[in-house]
Amino acid sequence: MRIDIITVLPEMLESPLNCSILKRAQNKGLVEIVVHDLRDYTLDKHRRVDDYPFGGEAGMVMQIEPIDRCISALKAQRNYDEVIFVTPDGEQFNQKTANTLSLAENLIILCGHYKGIDYRVREHFVTREITIGDYVLTGGELPAAIITDAIVRVIPGAIGDEQSALSDSFQDNLLAPPVYTRPAEYNGWRVPDILLSGHQAKIDEWKHEMALERTRRLRPDLLK
Amino acid sequence: MRIDIITVLPEMLESPLNCSILKRAQNKGLVEIVVHDLRDYTLDKHRRVDDYPFGGEAGMVMQIEPIDRCISALKAQRNYDEVIFVTPDGEQFNQKTANTLSLAENLIILCGHYKGIDYRVREHFVTREITIGDYVLTGGELPAAIITDAIVRVIPGAIGDEQSALSDSFQDNLLAPPVYTRPAEYNGWRVPDILLSGHQAKIDEWKHEMALERTRRLRPDLLK
Repeated sequence: MRIDIITVLPEMLESPLNCSILKRAQNKGLVEIVVHDLRDYTLDKHRRVDDYPFGGEAGMVMQIEPIDRCISALKAQRNYDEVIFVTPDGEQFNQKTANTLSLAENLIILCGHYKGIDYRVREHFVTREITIGDYVLTGGELPAAIITDAIVRVIPGAIGDEQSALSDSFQDNLLAPPVYTRPAEYNGWRVPDILLSGHQAKIDEWKHEMALERTRRLRPDLLK
Repeated sequence: MRIDIITVLPEMLESPLNCSILKRAQNKGLVEIVVHDLRDYTLDKHRRVDDYPFGGEAGMVMQIEPIDRCISALKAQRNYDEVIFVTPDGEQFNQKTANTLSLAENLIILCGHYKGIDYRVREHFVTREITIGDYVLTGGELPAAIITDAIVRVIPGAIGDEQSALSDSFQDNLLAPPVYTRPAEYNGWRVPDILLSGHQAKIDEWKHEMALERTRRLRPDLLK
């Protein structure tokens, strides 16, 4: 799988894309992540990628031309499953979308910045608009890292222990049960006795009950 | 304002916290962001922060002891408004929460990693559990960066143009209207004539109508 990320702030993505599981997945050859500096696709000497909005809005707007040049250059080399634009008014990203996108061969993720991008980019180049939540951020770079992380994480082989991913929150529409580790008692606070009992069947039953109880209480919408 | 982030992967946060608006806000003295390596708060020579879960779950669990030591050391120096734990089963982060948290004096954000943290940490040290969305990530580091970015962005003075933040999506429960910039025609695709008309009152009316129309179509829930 290959993910091309287009941004005006490539340095913001440096450490998130080169740590931990994303680093290992790239080293293992499971995914190739290429970050493109949009300024490399400008023709003018000031490497300008934005301009004032028509109609007198505050803030700057990313221009269509460099984005067109970058996307066209990429598309000339391979086919892309999706050209994703990260925007607060896109469809809500969730685990199901992450699972689906992890099956793609090639993805482009376009990061917005400043006040937004020229709307014609969204109409003519973008195939899918995604938001990671109802909040406004400096730009699409961190959301692009989030989406990449969630996608790569579910590629088989990316995390050491696949059993672990399967019992994560959302994979079965249940929140994860509480987890505990040593010491069994700390500050007078004890781990639930059942977990120390060695009775695996009963422990599994307890975990399932806790997952259900927590989901009912905190996220009843997941059970619908 | 001060934000302390506790993590086992401080290097993952390096570039997101030192770019763009977060960098400028720190340089201006609007916010102090301090990242703590949880391993600095271990006592054993292997700097171990995790251990196997009780009850035979797959994955590793972050231990209570180093977290207690780190949080206690911070609390000895100043009062904290919240100790936030980033977790998929927390309350949904949104713009309102970002606005509220931006008024805090001191915040701790604790990043989970591996399979999770010992549940007693959540019961005894954490005051607020927040999720940025219904998807599972490698760890809480990117969500901590997202929350920090959303919070700092709304501190007065953090972004150059405050008018720009006010017209962002969600600040008025409306999605932002489409934006366009030069050239007025590209590839035969024209900017809407109204935006070139110079008629500011009509332009503003059009923008409001577009914002309403987009919100009704894409996010009717925001209008309730």
